[in-house]
Amino acid sequence: MASDRFAVGVDFGGTKIAAGVVNIETGQLVGTARKKTRTQQEQDDITRRLISAIDEALQEAGMEPKHIAGIGVGAPGQVNREKGVLLFGPNLAVSDIPITDPISSYYGVPCRLGNDVEVATLGEQYFGAGRGCSNFVCVFIGTGIGSGIIHEGKQHLGASATAGEIGHIVLVPNGKQCGCGAFGCLEAYASRTAITKAIVAGLNRGQDSLIREKVDLAKGTLRSKAIANAIAAGDDLVTSIVTSAAQSMGAGLATIINFYNPTRIILGGGVIEAVEMYFNIAETEARRQALRIPGRRVEIVRAELGDYAGIVGAALLVRARELASTP
Amino acid sequence: MASDRFAVGVDFGGTKIAAGVVNIETGQLVGTARKKTRTQQEQDDITRRLISAIDEALQEAGMEPKHIAGIGVGAPGQVNREKGVLLFGPNLAVSDIPITDPISSYYGVPCRLGNDVEVATLGEQYFGAGRGCSNFVCVFIGTGIGSGIIHEGKQHLGASATAGEIGHIVLVPNGKQCGCGAFGCLEAYASRTAITKAIVAGLNRGQDSLIREKVDLAKGTLRSKAIANAIAAGDDLVTSIVTSAAQSMGAGLATIINFYNPTRIILGGGVIEAVEMYFNIAETEARRQALRIPGRRVEIVRAELGDYAGIVGAALLVRARELASTP
Repeated sequence: MASDRFAVGVDFGGTKIAAGVVNIETGQLVGTARKKTRTQQEQDDITRRLISAIDEALQEAGMEPKHIAGIGVGAPGQVNREKGVLLFGPNLAVSDIPITDPISSYYGVPCRLGNDVEVATLGEQYFGAGRGCSNFVCVFIGTGIGSGIIHEGKQHLGASATAGEIGHIVLVPNGKQCGCGAFGCLEAYASRTAITKAIVAGLNRGQDSLIREKVDLAKGTLRSKAIANAIAAGDDLVTSIVTSAAQSMGAGLATIINFYNPTRIILGGGVIEAVEMYFNIAETEARRQALRIPGRRVEIVRAELGDYAGIVGAALLVRARELASTP
Repeated sequence: MASDRFAVGVDFGGTKIAAGVVNIETGQLVGTARKKTRTQQEQDDITRRLISAIDEALQEAGMEPKHIAGIGVGAPGQVNREKGVLLFGPNLAVSDIPITDPISSYYGVPCRLGNDVEVATLGEQYFGAGRGCSNFVCVFIGTGIGSGIIHEGKQHLGASATAGEIGHIVLVPNGKQCGCGAFGCLEAYASRTAITKAIVAGLNRGQDSLIREKVDLAKGTLRSKAIANAIAAGDDLVTSIVTSAAQSMGAGLATIINFYNPTRIILGGGVIEAVEMYFNIAETEARRQALRIPGRRVEIVRAELGDYAGIVGAALLVRARELASTP
């Protein structure tokens, strides 16, 4: 049936909810919608906002629920895939929120839930930089750092369904404290959060930088684009800090290359998209520190779907079992 | 046929060649033999010594070549599994040595070649600490550090068949130089070689230690048993150095737990077998530094086959394709 070829994908993020109607055979987006995510959310409010975004995306595409094969949702946190429950979303300040049941009963179509990194990896696998490759690691570098592992065409979720936490590999024993509570995690050195902290610390010590007015000192936040602009303008502080962060990422990638020996590594996320030099330095360092044979063999490429990986990948959750059974 | 139930396994190591006739249905050893490995070996000499060890093992078992299903050889280095050639053996000082062809034509049975870590992992998988588990990482800690990865019942060899090089994950960026040429590898902190170097450095700085007369200062070598004895006698220098090494191993294991999320980690090799405290500290540190969920979930256990993992695992190479196809 032609109607089976479309699904709605929802990228349920910390600051926005983005929904889109996706042709799940081609990856083409035929209608999208965005809503802000409110903090201090409650169950009813979350369901209402998800439905409102899905409705708008369907309207944009000129479709009705009966035209779609299902709805997939990617959420930033730990999920129970079987029960369709968001267990814990650190950036959403919520826990134990049923996602799939209310949506599925409202629209009368199947609904599936996945983790945001898992879902973006699925998007890259079928319609992005993972095409034609059955063994790869897809690393996303933004506020935090996460990765999805594709093993023989199937996503490797691991014993507790938490595989791919590359942001928390130990890069520096007893090093900087990470948001997870442990010390020396890669994320504490190579994420946008780490870069921003280092920049703020530099500014507080009185170092000169063009980026001074771009930092939200109250929140300690900085956009990837502002970092890229400062580098383009030749800002020494920012260039030096980003170089260190990308070198740390390269060391982390060397660890993955030596241990897991993937055919391909895909780098994506806000930092990679905005900051050209980060990718280049990370790649160079990864190959320098990896063993000769796997280090030469591995392909290191950029993600291709950008912001849309979350929507497209979430829509693919509807096909996930079918896809997984044909590696 | 009853004759199909036995195979010869050969553990071709840097200092010895050990061969055994193995019941490949039960893992039982029914005859073994040992030869010293000569340095400065040439092709004919290697083949002759392998055959002499195999002959003796068959004799011990009261068997003839027609009674066995095949012969498997595990070698310490890079191997070409299809061609049965040992490409490079760093501790053997040889390269491009055909192993399987001469043995196979001499005995008239199939011969297969594998890497020593791969083969020991296979042994633990079927007859040791890996039984009943389809996703585990088997780490061997001795002169060097290597690991085998079992993914859904099959060994994950990776894009260039070098997966599992846990000894070369980057533990300390720009840290101590490793034997591989890179800096800061886990092996440079947690292997017996690293422990011995640290002990020799301590002795050279004049630190007191019971172990002084146990070190071969010319070669810079030390046996695992001597390390264990020094700890048992309360030697502060050795205890402190081994504690650091095991803590480093724990950090490396946390990296594997967070990234790969295995069901089980098996620790084996000379250091683990001889030095009780190494395992305990590595386990404690691994769980402390891992993320809460995968860190609690993972089972961390000792290898069970000890010295025999190499022989039993090599014999299993004869069954490897059959085993791999039924995960």
